[in-house]
Amino acid sequence: MQAIHWNGREIRVCERPDPEPGEGEVIVEVRLAGVCNTDLEIARGYMGFTGVLGHELVGVVAAGPSEWLGRRVVSEINFACGDLEHCESCRTGLGRHCPGRRVMGILDADGAFAERVAVPVANLHAVPDPVCDEDAVFAEPLAAAFEILEQLALSASDWREQRALVLGDGKLGLLVAQVLQRAGTRVTAVGRHPDKLAILARRGIETRLQADWTASQRFDLCVEASGSSAGFEAAVAATRPRGTLVLKSTVAGRHELDLAPIVIDEIQVLGSRCGPFAPALEALAAGEIDVASLVQEQMPLARGDDALRRAAERGARKVLVDCS
Amino acid sequence: MQAIHWNGREIRVCERPDPEPGEGEVIVEVRLAGVCNTDLEIARGYMGFTGVLGHELVGVVAAGPSEWLGRRVVSEINFACGDLEHCESCRTGLGRHCPGRRVMGILDADGAFAERVAVPVANLHAVPDPVCDEDAVFAEPLAAAFEILEQLALSASDWREQRALVLGDGKLGLLVAQVLQRAGTRVTAVGRHPDKLAILARRGIETRLQADWTASQRFDLCVEASGSSAGFEAAVAATRPRGTLVLKSTVAGRHELDLAPIVIDEIQVLGSRCGPFAPALEALAAGEIDVASLVQEQMPLARGDDALRRAAERGARKVLVDCS
Repeated sequence: MQAIHWNGREIRVCERPDPEPGEGEVIVEVRLAGVCNTDLEIARGYMGFTGVLGHELVGVVAAGPSEWLGRRVVSEINFACGDLEHCESCRTGLGRHCPGRRVMGILDADGAFAERVAVPVANLHAVPDPVCDEDAVFAEPLAAAFEILEQLALSASDWREQRALVLGDGKLGLLVAQVLQRAGTRVTAVGRHPDKLAILARRGIETRLQADWTASQRFDLCVEASGSSAGFEAAVAATRPRGTLVLKSTVAGRHELDLAPIVIDEIQVLGSRCGPFAPALEALAAGEIDVASLVQEQMPLARGDDALRRAAERGARKVLVDCS
Repeated sequence: MQAIHWNGREIRVCERPDPEPGEGEVIVEVRLAGVCNTDLEIARGYMGFTGVLGHELVGVVAAGPSEWLGRRVVSEINFACGDLEHCESCRTGLGRHCPGRRVMGILDADGAFAERVAVPVANLHAVPDPVCDEDAVFAEPLAAAFEILEQLALSASDWREQRALVLGDGKLGLLVAQVLQRAGTRVTAVGRHPDKLAILARRGIETRLQADWTASQRFDLCVEASGSSAGFEAAVAATRPRGTLVLKSTVAGRHELDLAPIVIDEIQVLGSRCGPFAPALEALAAGEIDVASLVQEQMPLARGDDALRRAAERGARKVLVDCS
């Protein structure tokens, strides 16, 4: 089959062997896959991964248990060991943190930029009928945005009382801002791209261009989704004493940082990674999150190397790879 | 009166004008004051403070409302503006984070290395009779250790289920380890000084010399009290996924840090500064925290510059300044 492969030196579209399903795994015929910044980071050496890239997909189950065959699905990306006897993470429902996990297209498991991919049946979620493929492919990054709601676990009325700042108008920042607004929170989004901020402004979210913005107030909740060390320090400064700063971007490498303000203001810094698919699919089915505007363009799998180059361009939105 | 003064260039014991109590303030005749690492940081430029140093004290109220006159007291160090109409921090009970606060011996307020110091009456706590001066002077740093319990707000049974690691056997680390153990948590303390770790070992706390220690497990709760960037990264690595890392040391300056593990493991990093005096005084009155073993030596105010030099020596414990 055709796939986008990273061999540790270069990204190439090439023929790869068809995936062999392991125990408890199904084969998904991929329809669409989305390019994430993590894919680009991996191609700069992050995680030391080699293999087929890609971890955001929608597809159809082509081989597996009869109750899943032919169903349109999305898939969680962390393949937990599932050993309930010996693995405390799996036993306590934290499979996303299983120390023995493989991660689709990121760690020890081939990814979704391919005609077919093997994934554990436990990772599948059926896509509700009203959700088109172009929206469903956002289930994974949207789940990552919903992770913030799961981690903070505030009541509905507490969410309505929060004032939130989202730093960064990349793909994840645009999803996070919408998810927080949907939770009832008053959100200010700061970014560098007027066209992207306009997507949020259309939905009633307050937006500011970074160049014009200075924090005139401090926020209960800041979400750092710019992935820069400058963004981290701006986020610390914009978080009120005893407030919460959510780190939503994994950036490889070391940065010069001053942690003293976190101590002085007793800020809670919360790392946040993958999230729950169920609320993401619900929100997509209800049409409550605009993901269509986040799409830059769709390119065929055969032009996969172009697709990743396009996604790496400054200001690019989500590039989708058509794998059908 | 005599005082230990930092003029921005040097620390000197010198004559200073007697403090004038502001509105709502009392004058405390200082008996004992403790040297904290923050005092030493200030003398390296931290906070840009100049004035009389010192913020850990026990003394007797010499001027003020009749109900406080002659009483033996300790004092909280954050002097909040107290403007309930305009200051949200003060209105919501977060006076320790009042943006207009002065801080004794640290920010815009003379400190306790002096014969007398002015403090707001709202900051006073009467010292219970069973607590001797040498123990009471630990109320402020011990309150900072109790802050962790207040911030995490776990139930008694949850505390008993936590496995905690305390990194650093400085004065604060020794207090934190004891406070966590008292909460029912199983504590491992890692430090560099066998004599200090022995204080904890005598109380049944598991101790490890840093040179011999590698994290063979990951902990629910890690407390970084070593004040080094190496300590920060060791603490991140030793915190389990979704676990909590409490930052208990303010270290001036910038450090090269890698934040990606915080995101990948969804760690909660909690800055922690000053804490509640009431449980600290209760624990001292009950004799449940060994502070006596933490004292290095007591020196008279007249030798204050020597006292700070002594406290700055590697491995030094708490140096007390006799101001009576």
